[in-house]
This record gives sequence, structure tokens and C-alpha cells, in this order.
Amino acid sequence: MAHRQREISISEFFLKNRHLLGFDTPAKALVTAVKEAVDNALDACEEAGILPDITVEVSDRGGRSRVVVEDNGPGIVEDQIAKIFGKLLYGSKFHKLSQSRGQQGMGISAAGMYGQLTLGKPLHIISRVKGDKLASEMHVAIDTARNRPDIHRKKQLRWDRPHGTRVEMEMEGHHQTGPHSVESYLKQTAIANPHLAITYRNPKSEVIRFERTTRTLPLRPAEIKPHPYGIELGRLIQMLNGTESRTLLRFLADEFSCVGRKTALAIIEAARKHADRKLSERSHPRHIAHAQAAALHRAIQKTRIQAPRTDCIVPIGEEQLLAGLRKELKADFFTVVTRPAAAYRGNPFLVEVALAYARPGGGDVEVDARGRMRKQAPEDTDSLVAQKDEPVRLLRFANRVPLLYQQASCAITRAVMQTNWRGYGLHQPKGALPIAPMAILVHVASVWVPYTSESKEAVEPYPEILKEIRLGLQQSARRLAQYLHHEARLHEEYDRRVHIEKYLPQIGLALQDILFLSDGERDATLKKLDDTLHRSRTRQGSAHDADRSRERT
Amino acid sequence: MAHRQREISISEFFLKNRHLLGFDTPAKALVTAVKEAVDNALDACEEAGILPDITVEVSDRGGRSRVVVEDNGPGIVEDQIAKIFGKLLYGSKFHKLSQSRGQQGMGISAAGMYGQLTLGKPLHIISRVKGDKLASEMHVAIDTARNRPDIHRKKQLRWDRPHGTRVEMEMEGHHQTGPHSVESYLKQTAIANPHLAITYRNPKSEVIRFERTTRTLPLRPAEIKPHPYGIELGRLIQMLNGTESRTLLRFLADEFSCVGRKTALAIIEAARKHADRKLSERSHPRHIAHAQAAALHRAIQKTRIQAPRTDCIVPIGEEQLLAGLRKELKADFFTVVTRPAAAYRGNPFLVEVALAYARPGGGDVEVDARGRMRKQAPEDTDSLVAQKDEPVRLLRFANRVPLLYQQASCAITRAVMQTNWRGYGLHQPKGALPIAPMAILVHVASVWVPYTSESKEAVEPYPEILKEIRLGLQQSARRLAQYLHHEARLHEEYDRRVHIEKYLPQIGLALQDILFLSDGERDATLKKLDDTLHRSRTRQGSAHDADRSRERT
Repeated sequence: MAHRQREISISEFFLKNRHLLGFDTPAKALVTAVKEAVDNALDACEEAGILPDITVEVSDRGGRSRVVVEDNGPGIVEDQIAKIFGKLLYGSKFHKLSQSRGQQGMGISAAGMYGQLTLGKPLHIISRVKGDKLASEMHVAIDTARNRPDIHRKKQLRWDRPHGTRVEMEMEGHHQTGPHSVESYLKQTAIANPHLAITYRNPKSEVIRFERTTRTLPLRPAEIKPHPYGIELGRLIQMLNGTESRTLLRFLADEFSCVGRKTALAIIEAARKHADRKLSERSHPRHIAHAQAAALHRAIQKTRIQAPRTDCIVPIGEEQLLAGLRKELKADFFTVVTRPAAAYRGNPFLVEVALAYARPGGGDVEVDARGRMRKQAPEDTDSLVAQKDEPVRLLRFANRVPLLYQQASCAITRAVMQTNWRGYGLHQPKGALPIAPMAILVHVASVWVPYTSESKEAVEPYPEILKEIRLGLQQSARRLAQYLHHEARLHEEYDRRVHIEKYLPQIGLALQDILFLSDGERDATLKKLDDTLHRSRTRQGSAHDADRSRERT
Repeated sequence: MAHRQREISISEFFLKNRHLLGFDTPAKALVTAVKEAVDNALDACEEAGILPDITVEVSDRGGRSRVVVEDNGPGIVEDQIAKIFGKLLYGSKFHKLSQSRGQQGMGISAAGMYGQLTLGKPLHIISRVKGDKLASEMHVAIDTARNRPDIHRKKQLRWDRPHGTRVEMEMEGHHQTGPHSVESYLKQTAIANPHLAITYRNPKSEVIRFERTTRTLPLRPAEIKPHPYGIELGRLIQMLNGTESRTLLRFLADEFSCVGRKTALAIIEAARKHADRKLSERSHPRHIAHAQAAALHRAIQKTRIQAPRTDCIVPIGEEQLLAGLRKELKADFFTVVTRPAAAYRGNPFLVEVALAYARPGGGDVEVDARGRMRKQAPEDTDSLVAQKDEPVRLLRFANRVPLLYQQASCAITRAVMQTNWRGYGLHQPKGALPIAPMAILVHVASVWVPYTSESKEAVEPYPEILKEIRLGLQQSARRLAQYLHHEARLHEEYDRRVHIEKYLPQIGLALQDILFLSDGERDATLKKLDDTLHRSRTRQGSAHDADRSRERT
């Protein structure tokens, strides 16, 4: 059987298993292709400090889809273009610990591979680097047997953009509307990236524009070194063998975050107690034996080391997230919670939770400046917020990217289901999502998001991550409960008022009868009574407004 | 940013994403490692026509686990050992369409990589090829940056086995009991592989032996060529470019299954109508342009082609599966359905469904040879069958391998939930598994099982696969319903009998009184009456037994 043993190229592997990369159905393939291109564009713009301005164009003729994504990013130098678009597992983000949308170096080349598989069409790329006179244009396919780019045509051309990249893909695709549509993906992207402007031309040639709500770029996330607590023994041995440092002390201080001279010495001292005494701060890392490395590994776990640095994680931020939500969602109550950073397996991460609650269909009680109350007609709630008798809508994000598929296997879904929403006044079937006219947004940001598959559609439910999401949900749910309680009081009050107003003329007649008032006196008394009632209402109303604004910031 | 772009090795990728390969927690890692080694051993034995005899040994000392799997397979030639165990994506099964347990060439090297990562320990392998005087022994690690084997020690040695392979792995692991244990995995493997004998030594040094119930090896599944209907345009172009055939006619007839000369000519004729007339049976495959290939692709879809061959799929078989189930499960009613083969995306597959129903705790009514009825005391049902107030246990298999994890995302689970079990007399909460003292076994066999992840823990819910599973479930559920109906009648009858027997003496006294019988006459009459009742019972009983045996085969 020996002669049948063969190497399998990573491209062949994913070609046969393309559902692992999100290309299982034509509808999903189309959204995934747009997503991969937009993610790359956003990462590139932010890394170069450019406010992203992105154009997305989708056309769909009888199962053949064309996707064009164009950005104003820094552009790609010519000799990198082919590799970035024509090779799986090639990129700049895998080998560093830093918060970015891409991390695998697979997405966009997988989209190209799918187009090639289904329609035999290579990717068409134009890119211009700032300062270059001409742009580079090429058609790139993947030689799947070797996992390397296959350049079809290549030339230099004039391009009206000063810098940027344009990717055009053709593939078997199916454009659909609804929660799993390109539009829904772009809308959610706009919510999580308030500094982003998108122009989207859909297959009907309608142009939809998502404007930015801020001109401030998010802070550039810092790149970090691994934290010692998250390092497995085998990885430690690998690092010892690969380091440039000449002494164990330098190795510990240089290759890890949160380890200074003092901590390094403490680790070495603890390791000496467990292994032979030969180990010292001057030991050469490459000459450390397996048993010594094991002792070092144990020593690390026993030494007190500062918690992972968290300035490498950049949240969307409460203010920005609120602005994004208000722009794209119709709801009456918004609240945002940003949790402090935490760590799983030595990887820092951070959770943000937002709730958007729309008053259920019954309409809306408003109090005007004079204290008059009235009910508004119910409005159509936006599709990103559930109807009142539906399970809440989940808007899941990881490193600012919306996650549209595999909701059932995601840590975010699990945490929402584990939360006792009945305690906060919502209806919730056992072990299910709560029922409410509400959207729950959860954002997990990390230097390394543990996705459940290469298609990056769900977050692996690590206990530490689940816990942080739950805490964020509870915190925001408490604010929601206060709001709901207040709303309920307001509705009661309204019903009482309506009752009183209805009987006010009768009260007037009765008073006139008892106190022998003239018609004028009667009307004056009634007016006074009415005003007093409104004033008391107005005081409550402004107290309520103050409440609300506290909750919203 | 160009200088930061780098190639990512597949090993590094899975090292960082090891949950994708099933190594996310120490408990799961241990089971996965055993599974990968056993799968390989079984594939090797069957391919060589050897009745497999496998020894599994697990020890666990404070989080450090050692797994040894030894088989009587054909052995591995020396220069292949390192690559098979020390390189991801290397194997013999990926490039052919044939039903086997392994398909990716990743599992066992991933287990090695995990051991290396967590404890820094390479794999230890001994293998002897039949006829060789000595066995080869080596310690193999993976150079993850290059995805290639790193041989630590290598030598030839005497080994008491005439042929076979022994793999020893050390890793961070945690041994647990219950449905996700090594023992449960081995037990289920024994059910689906009745020709297999396993000796298992657990961490407590207890030896558990799973005997074979047949000495007949399963039929060797045939290797097939792809079916034209499942081929995408891009793949067709790739095949046209890579073929050895000199004419289009030969290409179609040689590279596809179910295409003879006549079908090939029909395809070419249909393509000529859509594209230019230049295309002919003598066209050279490598000179066919993109537009012509597209026309050919459309023509294939429009031509009537025989359905995929199905003799490449080998089911476990009703008889074998029944024997396996009876040996390992305690239940009262068994039924097995083997569906005819079907195809998804041109890939043939086949579904087998078995039900094992244990009478609920209330005990068991038995009818003896004389027609006497009695209730048995309830027995402890086996852990693979649910208790009466629990959801049924699912035993999921793909190509004879038990699937222990990710039940929620599996096509099998979805099909069981979609089936209306209430129609067959079981309790079933909405959208959930039915509640019954039952195990449902589903086996999906295919030349290419579409797993939802590299860890091969769940089957992707393709519509064609879902449909076949549902049909199998319905067919077996109908038999269950008959049995349950009969059981219910039996219980009713028993209650009636008990009632009659209780009053028989009174009936005797009354008869004596009315008919002026002597005590002797009275007793004789009563005995006759009793016997008559029993005889009627016995007739019903044997009719029932005949029923049962029909259902079981």
C-alpha cells in the first residue's frame, strides 16, 4: 500500500471540504466572499491609518454571481498580490498576537478558489500603492495541487484612485435577502465600525449608503508577546530552541509579556528547586534538557506573574456603539456595557454587550412638554430587532466582524440562553432565547479569537469567555429591567389619567352642585385640577428622562 | 507591511487551532487520540484482508496520559512511517473515492503533535511488515514550522508479532467515564465492527475484552471514479488539463463512472448544440477552451446519465448489526433497517438505522411455555440505552466509526428531531429528541463523508442525507409502533388475567351453588376453565413470537 501514500495539498483539502471555509451553498458562498474581501479591506485601512471608504457591488445572473469590493487602503506591492490572493495559509496576521479581523490567511484565497472551482474564473485584482504612478492588475488562480498562485495575466495600468485595492470575483452564487444577506452583513458591519463608510450596489442596481458616524479611527491595537501562563510545555521547548537570547534570564524577559528581571529570577529559582541545581539564569536556552524545561514549565505555573496586558484589545466603545445602534436600529431603549479585559489560555480578550429594546406593538406613551400624555401608533420595528412574540435577535461580533452563521454552536448564544431573563422581566422558554422585541449585541474582541471552524462563524465556548459574556448580559439586563419597570408604571399612569379625564366633566358638575359654583367658577376649578394633575405628571416625566440619559451613556 | 507577510504551515495552523482537530480539552484529547489510532489500525487490517485484533492501553497519572494501540495489521514499510506519523495531510485515502474510516491524512499526526505540544514527547512507533525479519522502531516528532517529520531515534529490533503496528503516545490527558469515555467509544466501535476483537486495559489496569461475533471480514469497498453530475465546472477544467486521454470521448469514458461510449457521445452532441461546432469526440482535452468546457458542463447536467454505482458502499448489514447490538446492549426489542444507496453531489452514500427499545422500568410480562404469565423485576438498563424518562440515546456512526461529540450539529440528530415520534406512540417535546427507554443507532457510510469539521465528529446536514436518515427512522419506527401496541395489549391482558385468577375461587363457589356440583366437580370445572384461558393466551403468545422474529431479520 506504500505507493498510494501521498501528500495532500492544503488547497485540495479545502477544495474537497469547502463547507469548512463557509462555501457550502451558493447563498452562503456569496456572503462569505463579500465578507472576506471587506474584512481584508478594513484591516488594511486601519493598519495604514486610513479612514476606510469601501464600495461593494453584487450582481447575480441566473446563479452566476459577480462581487466587486474596492477600498481606499494602502494598496499591495506587486510581488505580494499573487501570494495573498492565490495561496491558502499566507498572511501577516497569523504569526503575531494582535487584534485583527483576519487571522488565518485563508479567507480571500478561499473565495478565489471557490470561483475557480464553480465557474473556472480566476480573481481579478487591481491595486495601487500610494506614491506609485501606475496600478498593478492581474488575474490570479490557485494551482490547488501545489497551493501556489497561478498568474494568468499581469500588467500595469493607470487607475483613478491614488491608492487602494479592487477585487473582482465571479462564482456560483445566489443573492438572497433577510438576516443572512449581504445587506444585513454590511449593516451590522457599519454598526460595529462607526468610522466606516460603505456604498453598496445590490443586484437590482439600488445603491445603499452606510454613512460613518465618526471620523476617528479606532486606536491601533498593540501587538503583544505571549503570556507565560498560557504556554504549553511543548511550545516552551520550541521557544527555547528557537530563541536568539543567549541566557535563560534574557529569554524569559524578552520572549514573554509581563515578565521582567525580577519575575524571571523568581521563575528560575523555583525551577531550580524542582530540577537539578545546574539550571541558572546564565544557562543557554538551547542547552536546556527536557526535564529542565519541564521543571521550568511547572515553575512558571507556580510563580506569581502579573495578569496579561490588556491595552492590546480595543473595544468599539460605549459611545460609538450607541451611535451605530441608534443609526441602524429602531428601538426605544439602548444600553451598552463594556467589560474589563480578561484572558483565556493567556490570550487577552474583552466583551461588549448592548441591548436595543423596542416597545411591543401596543404603541408608545409619550409625555409632552406640558405633561400631556398620548399614545403613538406602533411603528414597524426594524428587521434587526425581533417582533414582540419572537425570540430576541442576536447580533454576534468577533473583532468587529458580524458572525452570521452557526448561531447554535456559538459561545454568545450559549451565554444568552444560560442567562435567566425571567429575573429581568422577560419571557423565556426553558433553555432558549428570551422572547422580546429586542436585539442583543455581543462583541468579543481578542488577540486570537478561538473560532469553531475555519469559516469563522462562531466562537468556541471557553469557560472564561462564557463567563465574561454572562456578566455583561446581566449588567445590561439590570438596566433593561429598570426601564421596563418604569415603562410599566408609565402605562398604568396613562390608563389612570385617561380614566380621570373622562370623568373630569362629571366631577365638575358634581362640585358645582355641592359648592353652588357658577359655570365660570366650575370651569376655573376644573382647569386648576387638570393643571395640578399634569404638573405632577411632568415632574415624574423629567425624573424619568434623567434616568434614561444616565442609562444611555 | 509587505515584509510581514509569511507562509503559514498547516501544522502551525492546527497547533494554534487544535480544537478543530478534536484536541480542545484533556478529556477529549485522550479519546480522540485513541480513536485516530484505532481507526487507522482497522483501515489497515481490512485493506490487507486481516481479521483485526487490537489492544488498547490507557494510563493516566495526574494529567499525563499514555496511550498504546497495537494491531495485527500488515505493518508499515520503514520509509513511510515517519511521514504517516509526522506530517499533517499525508495519506493514501484522500485522493481516492472509497469508503474508509480515515480520509484526511491528519488524525494520527495531529495526536502526535498534541503530545509534543503538551508534554514535549514524540510518538513512539514499532512496525513490522509481514515477512520482514526485524521490526522498525522510531520516535517521530513534527517540525511544525515546515510540516515534516523529525525522527529522533530509529532502529531495527526483534518483535514477537509476525506483523503489525504499535503506537505509543504521551500527552496531557484526562481519563473520564460515561458516554464520552474511551470505553464507550470502544464499545460502540465493537457494535459497528462485529469482526473486530479488542482488548482494553483501562487506567485501573482492568482488562475489558470485546469479542468478535463474526469471523467474516466486511466486503472490500470498491474504489470508484467521480460521477459526472457531481463535478463543478472548475473541477472539470482541471480534469481536462490533467488527463492522459488524447480525445474528449476517451476522457469522458475513462475519467468518470457511469459514462460509456454512448453516454459520452450524447454529452458531446449536446455540448455542440450550445457551443461552437468545432467541439468533437476527437477534440484534444487539453485544447478545450473555457467556453467549450462550460458548454460541456451544461451538457452533462442535461444528459441522462445512469445513477452513481452503489456497490462501492458496504453497509454493516442487518444481521451483523443486530448481533452487535444484542451483545452490547440490554433491550427487549431490536430492529434494523438498511436503506438502499443514494447520492449527494455525485457521492454515493447509504444509511442504516437501528432501534433498541428496553421495556420501561415497570417490568416485563413474560408468557411461559404453558401460557402462564408473570412479571419480571425491572433490570438496570445498559448505559447506552436511555432510562424511560430520558431523551433517547443517539449512537451515531460514519463509515463504522462512532461519533461522540458535537451531537447538536449533526445531520443524524437533526433527522431524529424532525421525525414525528408521537405518531409512533412515543412522547416527544417540540423540536427535541423523543423521550423513551431507547437507543437509536444511525450509520452513514459514504465514499466521502462530509464532516462538519476536521475532527470528524458530526455529519454536515446535506438535504439528501437528511432525507435518507428520516426514511430509515420512519421505517424502523413503524415496526417499533407495532411492538409497542402489542406490548400494551399484553399488559392489558395480564391485568385482566390477574383479575380473573383472583375471582376464580369465587366463580367456583358460585358455579357449585348454581349447578349443585360436588367439591371434586367444582375443582375439575375450575381447572378446565383455567386451562382454556391459558391455551387462548398461548396461541396469542406464539403468534406474537412469529411477529417478532419477522421484525428482527
